Order: sequence, then C-alpha cells, then structure tokens
Amino acid sequence: MTQRNIFLLPGDGIGPEAMGEVRKIIAYMNAEQDAGFITDEGLVGGSAYDAHGVAISEDDMAKAMSADAVLFGAVGGPKWDDVPYEVRPEAGLLRLRKDLELFANLRPAICYPALASASSLKPELVEGLDILIVRELTGGVYFGEPKTITDLGNGQKRAIDTQVYDTYEIERIASVAFELARTRKNRVCSMEKRNVMKSGVLWNQVVTETHKAKYPDVQLEHMLADAGGMQLVRAPKQFDVIVTDNLFGDMLSDVASMLTGSLGMLPSASLGSPDPKTGKRKAMYEPVHGSAPDIAGQGIANPIAMIASFAMCLRYSFNMVKEADNLEKAIATVLDKGIRTGDIMGEGCTKVGTAEMGDAILAEF
Amino acid sequence: MTQRNIFLLPGDGIGPEAMGEVRKIIAYMNAEQDAGFITDEGLVGGSAYDAHGVAISEDDMAKAMSADAVLFGAVGGPKWDDVPYEVRPEAGLLRLRKDLELFANLRPAICYPALASASSLKPELVEGLDILIVRELTGGVYFGEPKTITDLGNGQKRAIDTQVYDTYEIERIASVAFELARTRKNRVCSMEKRNVMKSGVLWNQVVTETHKAKYPDVQLEHMLADAGGMQLVRAPKQFDVIVTDNLFGDMLSDVASMLTGSLGMLPSASLGSPDPKTGKRKAMYEPVHGSAPDIAGQGIANPIAMIASFAMCLRYSFNMVKEADNLEKAIATVLDKGIRTGDIMGEGCTKVGTAEMGDAILAEF
Ligand SMILES: CC(C)[C@H](C(=O)O)[C@@H](O)C(=O)O
Ligand SMILES: CC(C)[C@H](C(=O)O)[C@@H](O)C(=O)O
Repeated sequence: MTQRNIFLLPGDGIGPEAMGEVRKIIAYMNAEQDAGFITDEGLVGGSAYDAHGVAISEDDMAKAMSADAVLFGAVGGPKWDDVPYEVRPEAGLLRLRKDLELFANLRPAICYPALASASSLKPELVEGLDILIVRELTGGVYFGEPKTITDLGNGQKRAIDTQVYDTYEIERIASVAFELARTRKNRVCSMEKRNVMKSGVLWNQVVTETHKAKYPDVQLEHMLADAGGMQLVRAPKQFDVIVTDNLFGDMLSDVASMLTGSLGMLPSASLGSPDPKTGKRKAMYEPVHGSAPDIAGQGIANPIAMIASFAMCLRYSFNMVKEADNLEKAIATVLDKGIRTGDIMGEGCTKVGTAEMGDAILAEF
Repeated sequence: MTQRNIFLLPGDGIGPEAMGEVRKIIAYMNAEQDAGFITDEGLVGGSAYDAHGVAISEDDMAKAMSADAVLFGAVGGPKWDDVPYEVRPEAGLLRLRKDLELFANLRPAICYPALASASSLKPELVEGLDILIVRELTGGVYFGEPKTITDLGNGQKRAIDTQVYDTYEIERIASVAFELARTRKNRVCSMEKRNVMKSGVLWNQVVTETHKAKYPDVQLEHMLADAGGMQLVRAPKQFDVIVTDNLFGDMLSDVASMLTGSLGMLPSASLGSPDPKTGKRKAMYEPVHGSAPDIAGQGIANPIAMIASFAMCLRYSFNMVKEADNLEKAIATVLDKGIRTGDIMGEGCTKVGTAEMGDAILAEF
C-alpha cells in the first residue's frame, strides 16, 4: 500500500481547532479509501517558543524536510508580541518556506457563489471570480541581506531591508505561473514597479523572455503593482493568473482574498522544485487567514480554509485529483445548504461551530 | 500686493489639458480677487526628454526650487517606454520629490456623494468616506542605495533595491500625520510589515514614541500593511488618517482612491519641512491619476483632480482656506448638478469635455 507522509503543524490560535477537522478527513480517507496517510505532528510559532524557546525546533524542521507534505495552521498572537525578533512566531513560518525552498506560493481567490453577497464589492463584480495569485515566496525583501537596525548615535537609528532577485528566481516562478495558466484561462498578468525598482526592471525582462522562449501560447500582460491593486478592486474578473514578487504578493493576495467575500476560507499551497530524481516536490499547505487569537479555543472558528488547503495538498502533493475535486465540491455543497460558521453567517442560514462544519463537509465528501 | 509664485509643470498626456483649466482659475483669481499669482511654466517627463534629453532640465529644477508652489500634471506614455532608466519620465517626478525634500505626501480619498454609486464597493460602505493617507515620499525603497542590476555571468543577473529609513524620517512623517489628525477625527493608523521587515520594526517603534512624547491625545492604532489593504476594501470608513512608508503608501493610496468611485478625481499634496526662518514649506501638488495617453489631446479628460490639487495648493501653500473651501464646494456642486466628463458619466447626467467642466466649476466658484 502507498505510504503518504504528512507532517502537521497546527501552530497557534485557531490553528489547532481547524487542523482537528482535517484530521477527521484524513482518518476517514485512511479507513474508507485506504489512502495510507501517516501523520506526525510538531510545534510552530508561539507554541514552539513556549516549549523550546524558538519558533520551530530543529527536530520539527527535520520532520518537515522529510515529509511528503506539511500542513500548517496559523501562528502568532498578542502573547508573543514582545518576544525577540529572531524567535517571533512568524520566524517559524519564514524558516519553513526558506529551508524547504518553497518558492511558489499559489493563492486562489475564488468566490463561492453562496457567499458572493458577503463581499464588500457589488455582487456582479465578484460572482464567479476565480483568480490564482502566484507569489514568489523565498526571495525579495523577506530574506535579502543586509536586514539590520543600526544605532547611529544621537538618538538616531537606521533600518535597512534589501530586496534581491536573481534571474533564475524570477524565471522559475514565471514558469510556474505560465504552466498553471495553461490549465486555466491561459492568461498571466505580471506585476512589479519597474518605474521605481531595479528588481521590477529585471522582473519584467525575465518574465518577458521566459514567455517568449517557452510559453508564447499564453497571453501575457504587465501591470504596475499599484495599478494592479486598483484593478483588483475595480474589475477583478479581468484576471486569470497573477504572478508577482514576495512583498507585492503578500499585499495583493490579501486584497484579492477580501474581494471574494470568502475571507477566512481561502487556502494556499507553497511548492518547491521537483526533485530531479524522484520528481517529488516539497510542499506546505496553509490557510491564508491568521491565528485569530480573539476567537481561539471557543470552537467557533471556520475550518474551511484549512480543509481547502488539504484539498490542495491532495491535488498537488499526492496527485489525488478526484479526491481533491470531491472535497472542494463538498465545501461548496455545505455552503449552498446554508450551513455557516459565525464569520460567514447570513440571513436564513444555520449557524454551526468548528466541529459541526467539519462534520458537515465530511458527510458530503 | 502679495506676490505668489507658482511654477507649472503640465508634463505629458492629459497633463497639459488638465492644467489649462487651472490656468483659467488662476487668471480669474488674479483679475477678480487680486490674488497676485505669478506663474511660470516648464517641462517634465517625456516632454522634457524630447526637448532636452532629460526628464527635467536643471533650469526647470531651479525654478521649482525657488517657487512658492509647484503644480504638476502627469508624466509618461508608451512613446517613452524604451528610453534609458535614468531619464524615463518618472525620473523627473522622483527628482522633484527628492531635491525639494517633499517628504510628506497627503492623499485624501474622499467619496463625492454624487459618485458613490460609481464605486465598485457597495454604496453604504463608501458613502461619506473621508480618509487621508499620509505617505512618506523621499525615503524607503524609492531612493535607498544600492539600487543596481549586476551581471553575474552565465546568463544570470542580480537586481537589488534597498529600503532604508532613519529615525528622523519616520518621526517627521508621523508628526505630520498626528498634526493633521487633530484637525480631523483625531485618529491615526500606522501601517508597516514589522513581522518581516526591520524598517517595519523601527517604523513601529518611532511612531509609538512620537505619539507618546508629543501626541498622546490622538488615538493611535498599528496595522500590518497587508491587513491594512484588506481592511481598506472591507470597511474603509474605519480609518481617519493612515500613515505609511513610500512603497506601501503607493499601493494603499491607489487601492483607497479606487474605493471612492472618484478615481481620476483625487488630488495630492507633497510638502517639505517649514523653513526655520520664513516658516514657508516647499510644496508640489499633483493629481493621483496618471497621464492617460490613450485619451490625451482629445479634450475629454477630467480636470477635477488637477483643480482639486490646486485647491490643496491654496490651502497648504497660501493659507487661502476660504478660497480652497469654495473651490472644493464648486466641484461638489457641479457634480451634484449631474455635469460629468466621460470617465464618470452616469445615467441622466450631462456629458461635457475638459474645458466645459473647467468652465462649470469656475462658474460655481
Ligand atoms: C505571517 C506573515 C509573515 C506572512 C507573510 O508576510 O508572508 C503572512 O502575511 C502571509 O501572507 O502568509
Ligand atoms: C509614477 C510613479 C513613479 C509614482 C510612484 O510610484 O510614486 C506614482 O505611482 C505615484 O503614486 O505618484
């Protein structure tokens, strides 16, 4: 029987509750479908700091490195607002991304029809919305050196962050975007600030050359990132795949997720390069939402983004396309039936907690 | 009689047309109100490149430096897409900001009641919207060094941009935001990415200290910039004054301007420090919109953002508060009457061109 190793990192806040619902689905798939999932679990973020004084232990890093896929919940909370910068909860997430070389972050922004009216945008602008943001995740200003605060004396300090991109980093993320576009509407929009940033100039050049050399069949457009933010709010349906750098991707994907009315429901996949020998790629799956410490531990958090992240895991790490489709359909069906956690509650709907939502999805799966 | 020196830089695309309408208002104020405006005019952007091979000449820079205020139209267009980076149209704008030390960029995002339905957001979310984005304009990744593209051999290049902030730069922009908040709803929200960027850490610290030391009466909130982008789309009316760095300000102000339904209608002011002797501050006023080369020269561009920028000039450079109020009211009245340029045309309204719009506003002034 196939063995499929998944490493669970529930993290902080609502992370563990949401992960609990995925655990149910995994158990079900093992029992009913012989899926062969083997899970192990570790600590990340504030909970790792409390246990080990770091945002993720070496032991857990090693397990993440050797797993077929990592499922990540969420990190952070006011409890850890004042821990040193190097061991703050986010450092665990950033180290995982960097050390696993998960350079390609896929962030779908889809509008569940049942939730279109929950968007702050007019429903006709978001109904049927289906954008995929492909964000570069291991480069740019997140990791560039120097990254320092220096005391200049006289009460003055100087903070420096460095945005760095090499040709190969842009080429590989552009290739991921073009490949994915071919499975969708065949359109890519690349966003940068070439009018101000040298990294934007190089980004624009390399995307253009990659397109010409390997993907001339895909439709390519370039947009300044500020104009891109505008256009996302003005007419989001104009986009299919958006490819952009780490920091712009962070901003733009948050704006895009908010458009859908499905905030707190959107998943993401972070992928590495395929291993030249085995063809396998390292991968981590996480909800776009944060740890929501204000509602943690109450059993009311929405587990859909975490479950949808597991659907992406089935699709991208285990090539279980049918199962992924079914799980995504189960989510849509439950929403169509008017079953809702508090965050997406609407008139005439039935309000449920985290576990009931998980059970309802499992029942449709 | 008072002499008030204004240097006009209409620039490219629709810049000159829009500036023409401001010239009418200046002439009227000189004739009817003895305003004493003395204007001179120069070239910037592509038009400066065509004439002098640079994005702004030394001569025009000197005139901008010595004027009481600069009015700037817009720069850029496909014609100059391939000119060298150092002399691209935007370089003229960036040099003006830097050499005049215009560190404080004020970008109001207001929703004209008559245009609320033109927003892509639900009208109830934007009606009465009145946000002021205070963007740092002479620091950060726009100007930090190194800013280079290096050939690494093997077909690889490396692009570097540097985000740099010193304590005093953050302190002075925070002070501007707090001062302005006192004239409004007394609330400031500071946005950065302290969870990823050292400049975000310093930004957060200095804003917090400035608040404590000098503006404890103002309500201060901190938000991560990605969450801020989300919140702008979700519930924009929660904000009064937003203070943020150069690059985040670029992105967030574009998103904010789009919310209002008044895109192409929003002005901005870029201010320097008051001169210790005269109390005067260097200043430049410009529309948030671009040069719109596709509609340039047809007499159909909307001059309202340019005229509203002149209203800001009356207010901030010449302390002509009554005149500024009147000009802003004239704009609102004309919109209430249903007079519209093509970009904001609505059912039952009267469509007019650039000059007619300018005349209509002047008639109400
Ligand atoms: C938690 C934080 C470090 C992270 C980021 O900035 O990448 C988050 O905002 C995200 O988008 O995944
Ligand atoms: C034209 C460009 C250089 C400029 C900027 O990035 O600052 C523009 O987008 C703006 O917001 O004024």
